[in-house]
Amino acid sequence: MFSTDDLCSLRWDAVSAKVEVIDQTLLPHTLRWCHLDSLSAFCHAISNMQVRGAPLIGITAAFGLAHALSDDASDDNLARASAALLATRPTAVNLRWALEQVTAAVQILPPSARARVALETARVLREEDIANCERIGDNGLKLLQPLVSGDRLNIMTHCNAGWLATVQWGTALAPIYKAHASGIPVHVWVSETRPRNQGTNLTAWELHRAGVPCTIVTDNSCGQLMRQGRVDCVIVGSDRTAANGDVCNKIGTYLKALSARANAIPFYVALPESTIDWTCPGGDQIPIEERDEAEVLSIAGVDAAGELREVNLAAAHSRALNPAFDVTPSDLVSALITEHGNFAASAQGLQQLRTVMTGV
Amino acid sequence: MFSTDDLCSLRWDAVSAKVEVIDQTLLPHTLRWCHLDSLSAFCHAISNMQVRGAPLIGITAAFGLAHALSDDASDDNLARASAALLATRPTAVNLRWALEQVTAAVQILPPSARARVALETARVLREEDIANCERIGDNGLKLLQPLVSGDRLNIMTHCNAGWLATVQWGTALAPIYKAHASGIPVHVWVSETRPRNQGTNLTAWELHRAGVPCTIVTDNSCGQLMRQGRVDCVIVGSDRTAANGDVCNKIGTYLKALSARANAIPFYVALPESTIDWTCPGGDQIPIEERDEAEVLSIAGVDAAGELREVNLAAAHSRALNPAFDVTPSDLVSALITEHGNFAASAQGLQQLRTVMTGV
Repeated sequence: MFSTDDLCSLRWDAVSAKVEVIDQTLLPHTLRWCHLDSLSAFCHAISNMQVRGAPLIGITAAFGLAHALSDDASDDNLARASAALLATRPTAVNLRWALEQVTAAVQILPPSARARVALETARVLREEDIANCERIGDNGLKLLQPLVSGDRLNIMTHCNAGWLATVQWGTALAPIYKAHASGIPVHVWVSETRPRNQGTNLTAWELHRAGVPCTIVTDNSCGQLMRQGRVDCVIVGSDRTAANGDVCNKIGTYLKALSARANAIPFYVALPESTIDWTCPGGDQIPIEERDEAEVLSIAGVDAAGELREVNLAAAHSRALNPAFDVTPSDLVSALITEHGNFAASAQGLQQLRTVMTGV
Repeated sequence: MFSTDDLCSLRWDAVSAKVEVIDQTLLPHTLRWCHLDSLSAFCHAISNMQVRGAPLIGITAAFGLAHALSDDASDDNLARASAALLATRPTAVNLRWALEQVTAAVQILPPSARARVALETARVLREEDIANCERIGDNGLKLLQPLVSGDRLNIMTHCNAGWLATVQWGTALAPIYKAHASGIPVHVWVSETRPRNQGTNLTAWELHRAGVPCTIVTDNSCGQLMRQGRVDCVIVGSDRTAANGDVCNKIGTYLKALSARANAIPFYVALPESTIDWTCPGGDQIPIEERDEAEVLSIAGVDAAGELREVNLAAAHSRALNPAFDVTPSDLVSALITEHGNFAASAQGLQQLRTVMTGV
């Protein structure tokens, strides 16, 4: 189902080296592809969240650095462009990693050879991301197949961990796309994911585009749907996974995990190996970012005339607290779905993953 | 603290019999008192949710019927006005109950005596509601006092069960107001309560007006705040309480109860006896209303010019499911706070309450 560029967040023409990304700030109301044709366009796309999702940020930055080297492949420009891209989202781990990959590949070369190799490196990173996500999809599908029983398979997800957060497939959504492609009658409960509503804005939009039936629900509804037997499993992504299997993910994940456990529903976390923080012993060591209260107190939508508008939800004197992530203890996680296979969410399970990785 | 009409949702002048209510559809952005001066104004106020909350609806209807009888106290008009008021919100139990109270008091009287007695009955219902809520506050305070430990007391609530849902005090918020008045340094975590945002719109507004410090958080944040030790207890209301102590309340209540249990935090439900459905053996027998998907897919707020605007959050093709309530099993409830005392959330606890009631 992902053979075309249709279900893809970053497309690239091998002949012209033209890079285009979906402007995700306009979703779900407008689909607009942006042609990134200058270093500043790449930087702007990342810093203004036209692209978001750690894997996609990294790959966009790699293409951005390649583009900068096609203009000027000097050591000076390599350092300057890399620094400019890195400064767009200083905390994104994949961003630094991708820039280091490109830099390592080109810095030993004479400037005349750098642009071509940088572009080739970006291409390879993009292909590897797609392949890893597809493997996550195949591995997750093995866990979904036993849950199928005649009627539709109801899968709940949270936030956006789909092809809009990667290049294709996604992480949490990859098994869902694989199940859909294999003929399983999948239906997805999309939790809206306040405060930024990535469920409504991104996940519902990308599932619809891929032809996967879905229904938006408030985050509050997720427990009741599980109590009513209307959820067969939950799959979410991970922003950071501790060495003991604790999962740090978008705020609200923990409540879904508690409810899944109380109702004996499998709760899966899909993640590329790159999100595992081997130096972090447990979830309580992960600092939780608290973001601007404005994300809670106001919201954007389109009015009757189709204009995108920001409206205030709360009284002017109101204060809000806005933690962006929460920690789900590993004992609430039924399995970790990775590109290397499915593992128990525990120190032992992650050691097994490490053995598989080093054995490959 | 409630000695003035300032913290009150329905005020009434004993001399002129003038009734005014806060137009809650304009909160939190505008405080406007509406003078209800005709039967149709009373009906409109209830059906358009200018007043909401089961107790407040009932009392507004009682005053509406008294008003109708002051125009025309015939049997015909008694039946007509009662039917018109009942039709405004056909599912609200308190509405029917309050109309029956007024009707029973006046129907045996000659028309000339009816208006005065109807108004007196409405006044008594209003006073009783205030007194019951205050008793809930006093009883709840006994549970809060042992939780105080030097620093501020952090109480989480959900939806609106305050003086905007009753006449004064509220149910879930009554113990909080009592604690604040007694000098306990209370701080309230107000969950926004998607989809209708009663937390942001009503609870944060009424707490602020009463001078009680509060912070709005997304419903998604509530689990993480509990994990971080930032919540000392949770108090919510109840729309309907089954005879085994299961509690049906605003959607999202169940997730907070699960999280409170997982983090060893007391989870209290404050309710007037009138919400107990003695004929309902357990929460799973309570039908869950599913409301219009538009409540999930769009939202209202004020724009930069201060105009109230509705905006669409989702893509036009989106579908949503909108269950309005959920069921919290009694074993997750630490205690039921009522006007008759505090009781275990169990069939036995409710039998004890019944004994106290019939003994009074």
